[in-house]
Amino acid sequence: MARSFEPYDAESFRALGRALVDRLADYLTTCDEAEPGPDSSLPVLAVTAPAELEAAWSATLSAAPEGPPAERALALLDALLEHSNHLHHPGYVGHQIAPPLPTAALFELVGSLLNNGMAVYEMGQLQTVLERRCLEWFAERLGFPESSGGLMTSGGSLGNLTALLAARQAQTGNWDVGSHGEPPLAVMVSADSHYCIARAVQVMGWGAEGVVKVPVDADHRMRTELLPELHDAATAKGRRVIAVVASSCSTATGAFDDLEAIADFCSARELWLHVDGAHGASHALSEKHRDVLRGIERADSVVWDAHKLALVPALITAVLFRDARHAARTFAQEASYLFEDDMAAYDVGHRTLECTKRGLGTTLYAALHAHGTQVFTDNVDRLVDLAQAFAELLERSADFELAVSPRTNIVCFRHVPTGFEGDLDPLQERLRRAVVDSGAFYLVQTRLAEGQFLRTTLMNPRTSIEVLEALLGTLRASAAAELRID
Amino acid sequence: MARSFEPYDAESFRALGRALVDRLADYLTTCDEAEPGPDSSLPVLAVTAPAELEAAWSATLSAAPEGPPAERALALLDALLEHSNHLHHPGYVGHQIAPPLPTAALFELVGSLLNNGMAVYEMGQLQTVLERRCLEWFAERLGFPESSGGLMTSGGSLGNLTALLAARQAQTGNWDVGSHGEPPLAVMVSADSHYCIARAVQVMGWGAEGVVKVPVDADHRMRTELLPELHDAATAKGRRVIAVVASSCSTATGAFDDLEAIADFCSARELWLHVDGAHGASHALSEKHRDVLRGIERADSVVWDAHKLALVPALITAVLFRDARHAARTFAQEASYLFEDDMAAYDVGHRTLECTKRGLGTTLYAALHAHGTQVFTDNVDRLVDLAQAFAELLERSADFELAVSPRTNIVCFRHVPTGFEGDLDPLQERLRRAVVDSGAFYLVQTRLAEGQFLRTTLMNPRTSIEVLEALLGTLRASAAAELRID
Repeated sequence: MARSFEPYDAESFRALGRALVDRLADYLTTCDEAEPGPDSSLPVLAVTAPAELEAAWSATLSAAPEGPPAERALALLDALLEHSNHLHHPGYVGHQIAPPLPTAALFELVGSLLNNGMAVYEMGQLQTVLERRCLEWFAERLGFPESSGGLMTSGGSLGNLTALLAARQAQTGNWDVGSHGEPPLAVMVSADSHYCIARAVQVMGWGAEGVVKVPVDADHRMRTELLPELHDAATAKGRRVIAVVASSCSTATGAFDDLEAIADFCSARELWLHVDGAHGASHALSEKHRDVLRGIERADSVVWDAHKLALVPALITAVLFRDARHAARTFAQEASYLFEDDMAAYDVGHRTLECTKRGLGTTLYAALHAHGTQVFTDNVDRLVDLAQAFAELLERSADFELAVSPRTNIVCFRHVPTGFEGDLDPLQERLRRAVVDSGAFYLVQTRLAEGQFLRTTLMNPRTSIEVLEALLGTLRASAAAELRID
Repeated sequence: MARSFEPYDAESFRALGRALVDRLADYLTTCDEAEPGPDSSLPVLAVTAPAELEAAWSATLSAAPEGPPAERALALLDALLEHSNHLHHPGYVGHQIAPPLPTAALFELVGSLLNNGMAVYEMGQLQTVLERRCLEWFAERLGFPESSGGLMTSGGSLGNLTALLAARQAQTGNWDVGSHGEPPLAVMVSADSHYCIARAVQVMGWGAEGVVKVPVDADHRMRTELLPELHDAATAKGRRVIAVVASSCSTATGAFDDLEAIADFCSARELWLHVDGAHGASHALSEKHRDVLRGIERADSVVWDAHKLALVPALITAVLFRDARHAARTFAQEASYLFEDDMAAYDVGHRTLECTKRGLGTTLYAALHAHGTQVFTDNVDRLVDLAQAFAELLERSADFELAVSPRTNIVCFRHVPTGFEGDLDPLQERLRRAVVDSGAFYLVQTRLAEGQFLRTTLMNPRTSIEVLEALLGTLRASAAAELRID
């Protein structure tokens, strides 16, 4: 009855799928066997100038290309494997994004093929239920009550915006803000907060003074003792502060703000407490390292990126509300939420900026369900333990300086070669460039008040202290070459 | 040197990957062989109450579950296949989301495993270049000049918000809006526009009067002759209108606003022209059906969802600007974009609300590259032709009424059984419920000024006119049963 459509052909898919899985499996083996260092069989990143890739892929997409589709697809796969940043390589210690569990990646294939868009329950029945299961599970880890609830959305930036929209709704009681001459709004946030908070404020149109930056202490934590006077000053300048955003943790150094102190302040002043736990909320999975989150159960909202410390691919972000009703109210354009029927909780398009949405919860659920949650707990423990061991190694090394004692898997440090008396900042930049260009490791850098630092995030459970010793050796060798010390 | 981590094991991945690909291939075969109708071997959707799925999947995620991970993963896959809405089934004629090409889904696996986050070029070198290639290719289809440019983002709602932020930036020359007592802003948009436009305005805090709704004509197109007086009225009420948002097309009925008329108006009044082409911009791929987009090359910005008419999984959205510089300025918090270096165009995190982002362009590029672009052109032609054939069938049928003559693959109609004199609205709702519950077809409904209508979107290239004849037969039979006419 139906006409055929060759690109849907099941047997072509089976053949290409198997070939593609085989190459990806071989790739994982290569990553597994890679010895980080200058002689690695696989560079972490084969740095290639944009112009070179632009030239190689400049041909206009053709209407009827030559060769069978499967062959063309596999050639593209090979190019992607060659030019990607290899997160599964033990020498990957760069940005805070997970080397995903292969099982999770496979469920992205499943989810993408089924393409159930989830805005309404009928467009993703089990996907909706599994998302709720993940949210409940994580809310429990946070110590949230049963009356809590949330949503999943496409990334931490969108998650933080969504939480601040909920705060605006809850604090002003009125989504129709900005048009009736009320005082302009503001949030208070640590000077080290992620740029997406300022971006969310910009999106909402509160202007530059919509962000009240609270200075940080020597450990890069918000100086919470300044909150009352900064709040008073903002109020005196005509701003209505509606929320404090705590960083758990900050991106640059991994510093965790004092949630108890901030919660006390928010309580006293009747402000919304939002915790940007994009990176650090995963510590709730660990018994050993969860003390950095003490007080998180008092937050009104928490954002968590599962694609950072929970071994799943981007973007899988949860926004949790201590009071589930906020999840339903954020985007309510009328009072219709007051009259919600039983199905409204399952039609998730009401709760997210997205209308059609990927089945984010399905991928996370699949990983947790298949491997068990202990794997995720162990991973947090292992990576944070490793960061602390790395910090000790750095402290024992006279020619390295640690920026701040790590509480999570982020370690910032700089190399001070023996006898070196030049400018340390450009040296770090040159060292980082040389090491990354060599393909031996992938690390990043960050600019702190104290100067330019090398920055590592230990994302890969296969990275060991020996790998990090090799990193220091490579940095020393690069510095020696750079400074012509030999 | 590195420690092992069992869930990364390459051979386990190979085995699970092959098993999973096999089951998905079998599933595609089942979809291929399904005969839509009450006796289909595969229901389009096996409707299941949330409570039932909640009960079946209520067990708390366990730390150390029983059984091997692969077995647990495959059992979950089976449940997902059973409970999903089957978009590849020829009887799927519901929401406007693509039954994806299997090749595209496979590249979601690749992208998810590699997990290159793309905010900076180093975190997705080839991914960044392929995204640019897709954007250039589509901009050319739109008739945009070489100086155009854009970005890819997570869905049409976020895409429309991003375009309106660019409009705000361009029209006010100042991202620090809302805090200095300027007149509140507004956009003009058809009364039939998608709710995400009002949501974007709500997010930006412009209040209810931030959306000036322009009434539609009998064909559900914006009454562009009303634009001048409505603009004047909004201005008189103290609003500064910055943009007109044209729908190409509206979601409910698939009506395309007159872009030439709107462009003339925007030109005369110096307003930004944004085209929400989430669904209909794909007509730019077709020679035969692109006339509905006449004038789109004059738009300042266009949003396009490739996951609607371009056979790829959600969410893959492009935001195109006629002047590429707007892409870089939307989120610029300082004037630093004036001093962009050559790399800035490749660090795509500057351009999107997301920081870390999925490799959206890679999946789209893979599909276009492997199968050739003609497949995508043919698909638009085939689905729009089919909608027009379906409309003719409805017009020939005395017991069906067509809402509006279709210009795209969206067809709204209602059943008026011979001799029926009751209320037509609840009848359509009951018929839709009965047909969906039967599993024979999946269609949706929409509330128009004229009343309640059944709504079909022909998304599947394997749906034929015979399938749609069977749909009408099933609706007649349902009505007969419902009304006890026999």
